[in-house]
Amino acid sequence: MPDYKFYYFEVRGVGEPARMAFHYGGIPFEDIRVPQQEWPDLKKKMPQGTVPCLFIDNGKIKLSQSSAIALYIGRKVGLAGRTELEMARVEEAIATYKDLYTKMADYCYTMTGFKDMDKDELYEKQAKPVSAQYFTLLSKMLKKHHNTFVASQKPTVADFFFAEYLSSVNGFAPELFKGHEGLLDYVKRVHSIPQLQDYLKKRPKTAW
Amino acid sequence: MPDYKFYYFEVRGVGEPARMAFHYGGIPFEDIRVPQQEWPDLKKKMPQGTVPCLFIDNGKIKLSQSSAIALYIGRKVGLAGRTELEMARVEEAIATYKDLYTKMADYCYTMTGFKDMDKDELYEKQAKPVSAQYFTLLSKMLKKHHNTFVASQKPTVADFFFAEYLSSVNGFAPELFKGHEGLLDYVKRVHSIPQLQDYLKKRPKTAW
Repeated sequence: MPDYKFYYFEVRGVGEPARMAFHYGGIPFEDIRVPQQEWPDLKKKMPQGTVPCLFIDNGKIKLSQSSAIALYIGRKVGLAGRTELEMARVEEAIATYKDLYTKMADYCYTMTGFKDMDKDELYEKQAKPVSAQYFTLLSKMLKKHHNTFVASQKPTVADFFFAEYLSSVNGFAPELFKGHEGLLDYVKRVHSIPQLQDYLKKRPKTAW
Repeated sequence: MPDYKFYYFEVRGVGEPARMAFHYGGIPFEDIRVPQQEWPDLKKKMPQGTVPCLFIDNGKIKLSQSSAIALYIGRKVGLAGRTELEMARVEEAIATYKDLYTKMADYCYTMTGFKDMDKDELYEKQAKPVSAQYFTLLSKMLKKHHNTFVASQKPTVADFFFAEYLSSVNGFAPELFKGHEGLLDYVKRVHSIPQLQDYLKKRPKTAW
């Protein structure tokens, strides 16, 4: 098996789905959580100047972009869709996740201390309308799969992206889930996957 | 073969790569170019309220998100990567394209008349720094594949995303390509793919 070094910050964020896919499949990897003070030096080694980044075979291959990494590992462990249509649903879901993430980024970064903007204004102008739109859409996507997972009746890496994100948002703005309680059941469903239990117990607790 | 109806606006934009993949593979499809005045009604039929959207089997299946659609068709016609690593490189490239697209969106929308913002300010604050960063990155990605295509030495749908975008940007801000002339050769390379010639000749000419 090639050696895997996975670089990301000391948060869950957009890197956590790849970590979960590794653990789900029992694939050994080095989980390198980069402290902020080490980042300026390390940044130079990253092809896009970004993390997450996966180094394969002692860095001979470096793969950037959270979705590409999660799908790459997801494919090896049965978490990237089993049919052509399921694969498309996984990609559709991850793209939807990214839209949601981008549209609520200022609010979420402000609430978790990575940005310093007006949180009340962002709550009204960003968090409320964007969550209303996307939480409704997400519920519809789940319903299509009998309220199991977002892209299939089996879990995929797309669920890992959504579960970690919703979990974070619920930590600092639980009231956004009023009327969308099914999404919190969904998070629990993802976090009940047997293959993840060991990891979920031991992983560092972070707000994001 | 299932019937395919592809909905998008009367532009190339993020819908063009799927159209190109259909034509590349010789897969028949209905290419529905929605005039702006018909959009409010049609929007209600779209699962995410967005286009591009692909209706399969008389709308029994509706697939949203430009990347998911392009990859779905791309997989059927050999344009989505031939190995696990190539598939990852295609997804990495499309995710990179989306970052670039998002970061330069205000400028590009203003230049093509879809937004009315200060174009000079956007040129300085957005177009110049973002294009400098991403054009350099894109050249590096091409170099990795011997200056052929972005995710492999063979074309993939990721090239269709980049070629259409670069082509548009070159239309309204050719000076951004100074020092990045290789990218214009790359666009020509994509637009020289034999399987695309018939379509490229007859497709409507649009600025975006």
